[in-house]
Amino acid sequence: MDEIEPLRQKMDVLTMEMARLLLARTRVATDIGTLKKETGRDITDETREFQLRQKILGLCEQEGLVDDRESGEYDVVTRFLNFLLNESVRIQQQQQQSTATGAAATHLSVFHRAQELERAGRSIIHMEVGEPDFMPPAATGRALTDAYTNGYTRYGPARGRPEFRQALAAYASGKFGAQVSADNIMVSPGGRFAVFAAVTTLLNPTDEMIVIEPAWPAYRDCAMHAGIKVRTIHTTLEDGWTPSTTEIAKLVNSHTRMIVLNYPNNPTGKVLTKGTMDTIMSLAAEHGLYVLSDEIYSEYAGKNSGWQSVLSYGYDRGIAIQSFSKSHAMTGFRIGYAVADAQIIDRMAALGALCLTSTSEPIQYAAMKALEEDVSGNADMIARRLDVLMQHAHSMNMEFMEPDGGMYIFARIRRDDDRFDGTAFSESALEGEGVAVAPGAGFGSYRDFIRISACNDAKILIKGMNSLKGMLYGGHI
Amino acid sequence: MDEIEPLRQKMDVLTMEMARLLLARTRVATDIGTLKKETGRDITDETREFQLRQKILGLCEQEGLVDDRESGEYDVVTRFLNFLLNESVRIQQQQQQSTATGAAATHLSVFHRAQELERAGRSIIHMEVGEPDFMPPAATGRALTDAYTNGYTRYGPARGRPEFRQALAAYASGKFGAQVSADNIMVSPGGRFAVFAAVTTLLNPTDEMIVIEPAWPAYRDCAMHAGIKVRTIHTTLEDGWTPSTTEIAKLVNSHTRMIVLNYPNNPTGKVLTKGTMDTIMSLAAEHGLYVLSDEIYSEYAGKNSGWQSVLSYGYDRGIAIQSFSKSHAMTGFRIGYAVADAQIIDRMAALGALCLTSTSEPIQYAAMKALEEDVSGNADMIARRLDVLMQHAHSMNMEFMEPDGGMYIFARIRRDDDRFDGTAFSESALEGEGVAVAPGAGFGSYRDFIRISACNDAKILIKGMNSLKGMLYGGHI
Repeated sequence: MDEIEPLRQKMDVLTMEMARLLLARTRVATDIGTLKKETGRDITDETREFQLRQKILGLCEQEGLVDDRESGEYDVVTRFLNFLLNESVRIQQQQQQSTATGAAATHLSVFHRAQELERAGRSIIHMEVGEPDFMPPAATGRALTDAYTNGYTRYGPARGRPEFRQALAAYASGKFGAQVSADNIMVSPGGRFAVFAAVTTLLNPTDEMIVIEPAWPAYRDCAMHAGIKVRTIHTTLEDGWTPSTTEIAKLVNSHTRMIVLNYPNNPTGKVLTKGTMDTIMSLAAEHGLYVLSDEIYSEYAGKNSGWQSVLSYGYDRGIAIQSFSKSHAMTGFRIGYAVADAQIIDRMAALGALCLTSTSEPIQYAAMKALEEDVSGNADMIARRLDVLMQHAHSMNMEFMEPDGGMYIFARIRRDDDRFDGTAFSESALEGEGVAVAPGAGFGSYRDFIRISACNDAKILIKGMNSLKGMLYGGHI
Repeated sequence: MDEIEPLRQKMDVLTMEMARLLLARTRVATDIGTLKKETGRDITDETREFQLRQKILGLCEQEGLVDDRESGEYDVVTRFLNFLLNESVRIQQQQQQSTATGAAATHLSVFHRAQELERAGRSIIHMEVGEPDFMPPAATGRALTDAYTNGYTRYGPARGRPEFRQALAAYASGKFGAQVSADNIMVSPGGRFAVFAAVTTLLNPTDEMIVIEPAWPAYRDCAMHAGIKVRTIHTTLEDGWTPSTTEIAKLVNSHTRMIVLNYPNNPTGKVLTKGTMDTIMSLAAEHGLYVLSDEIYSEYAGKNSGWQSVLSYGYDRGIAIQSFSKSHAMTGFRIGYAVADAQIIDRMAALGALCLTSTSEPIQYAAMKALEEDVSGNADMIARRLDVLMQHAHSMNMEFMEPDGGMYIFARIRRDDDRFDGTAFSESALEGEGVAVAPGAGFGSYRDFIRISACNDAKILIKGMNSLKGMLYGGHI
């Protein structure tokens, strides 16, 4: 007892001094945030973060504070830097969100605003959201009726009905070139919860996760929520949205625990080549990384795109996320699933049990029936609509890659006069023209891009594109 | 660009200095760990952590570093202290070998085992789970059919369909003596997610929450998951399950943020007197505590029990949790809601949006229709069954309080020979007799209790009780 006391006093003095520095640092971060806001710059800056990290660790080594990168001390400093970097991002995000309009615009905020306008009587063309305009399979309607009659209305197992998990396992085995049993399946109320469960149960605060941008914002949001550090790989239209595997290799360090893949990609429609995918998978295996592969657009992978599931690698740290939202037009049902090693599923399902008890039984029953339906016609229809979109986008001088799959085109708009701002553009398109598109900034550092969804019939798409053309070129090009 | 550079240099200097202190601190923590290991002391030390926290925050306030506990700066310091405290624990854990604790048996683990046995062909009497054996209102069956036809199958707002939230607001206003609008409502996939959202978004790691035991284990589980400290009030059968408000007052300190109420209580059926409820509410108001009131058994409050909702107090930090599971026998639908101040709902709904996008639309539609149905007959039926249970329990010398409401009796069994173990008993009742009951230990320190559910018709309940009697007294009493 007496021996510990002086050590504790020493700790208190050190802690107090650190708190003093932390507050000074917080104020500097706030000042930087103000400048960034004024100049419209992005909050996260990988190069800057990378440099800072190198510099601090370098100095620590120089001064003999850390003499061995494998030591626990190196670990402590890295986790500490992650903590500080997340704090800076958090502070600057709060500053940017403390504007009249609230949080940064994303496809979702545009969608919710569009719904508000609709409730107020406006007619809106929805090209912002990945929501098929066609009906779910008729079998799901009958299944909802039967669910009540057949008593699929009671508590069930946290990870899903056994017969549904078996059906999903059989489906996944056939579709994704994998050996999958019911133990490898967790049913969830939408793909989003499966992503949330994977990120927050497999990673710990200050662990690192790699996200390839442009990306659906939920990966980053889930990570930030859990205090996990997101490292970003920026991809470009010029490089055909191909991530540099050299850059990925450089980002990986002893704290990296997961890489997120999403192919066919939202928003670009990119599908990785086999070569790139192979390299990423070997890199993951080498460093023991989880590969969280969001494959909810797999039904919309182009026939010759060469798309393959993470499951086809038989990698024990690969997690595939699937959903009925896009494939079966069942967005509002909220039903999806994860496929992974049984031990990973155990951990994710424990969180599911804690948060949700289980997934709605009538909805599981409806999805089980949907699984038996042939939905390949949907993919053909979306492909035809993408052709229509592309034709019009070309005629409007939009720059984009022809998508390998998915439901969107992700297009850059260049103006001679000024730098194009996709966020301002999507706002005025919605408020002025009643045309909703998703701002590129919602997917990363892509302010001059917009995402246009093909989830409407051709006539509506053409009408929407003509409105955008009018805005851009005053109706004559 | 140039303006930011000097600020960044400032940050680097501060960060470097912090890293230096951190490493010094890490070494002191290691020394303390060595001493603790030698003297066999626990790694975590609540008193010490509490004191350190007080001291650092006090000093920060004194020196004008943090002048306002509501400010973001207070937040930063608190998160930073949490980081450091976690690091110390981590370091010292690495020095020692941490031990694993096995999961305890709960009503849920018994339920899942019972379902396993059923799938293997066994016939089980379910007296372990609060799942009504009657059907959901017929209107829900029709609503599921209509949901498909009427297109309630698309993405909707994160916090629930506007017309459903309005209907719930009107219902809550009428039923709970409160002024409630749609802004006060968040729809969720079951009451459990609403509990999870309230606990994890309103409280921060190392905040404290008071739970009155016996209690549904989810409150504690959600808190533990988020690093929130649970302080327990133990109540006894002898005191009629009344919590001591003096004891509650004594537990409250500057870290206490929430008290959880659950009346009619699961498992005891207790309803608080107006006097006790008033005292708890004033205590909460005095200390600015959230009152999380799980009211999912409110439809089963006895007519003369004097039950009242937390909402009747008009307290801006009161949160009522409701569900259709028990009241409308819609357990497997997974649908519930929270009622609270609009700002609280905003925070909870942000987590809902992150984890779930939204609650299933067909299910919301079914619940909206269920809300129009008269379900008071269910409560009368359960009350009659509780009478049957009580009669048999008395004849078996079980000790319990006649419930003021709810669906259960929580009974102590005393044996002359040995101390009764409810966990062992419920295991052998299930495996041997096919009768599932819930072990008392799942609700707190109540090993000699079991919870018996009235969710079966009288004939089945009698059969089940007779099997238990046979086990206890060899068939002759």
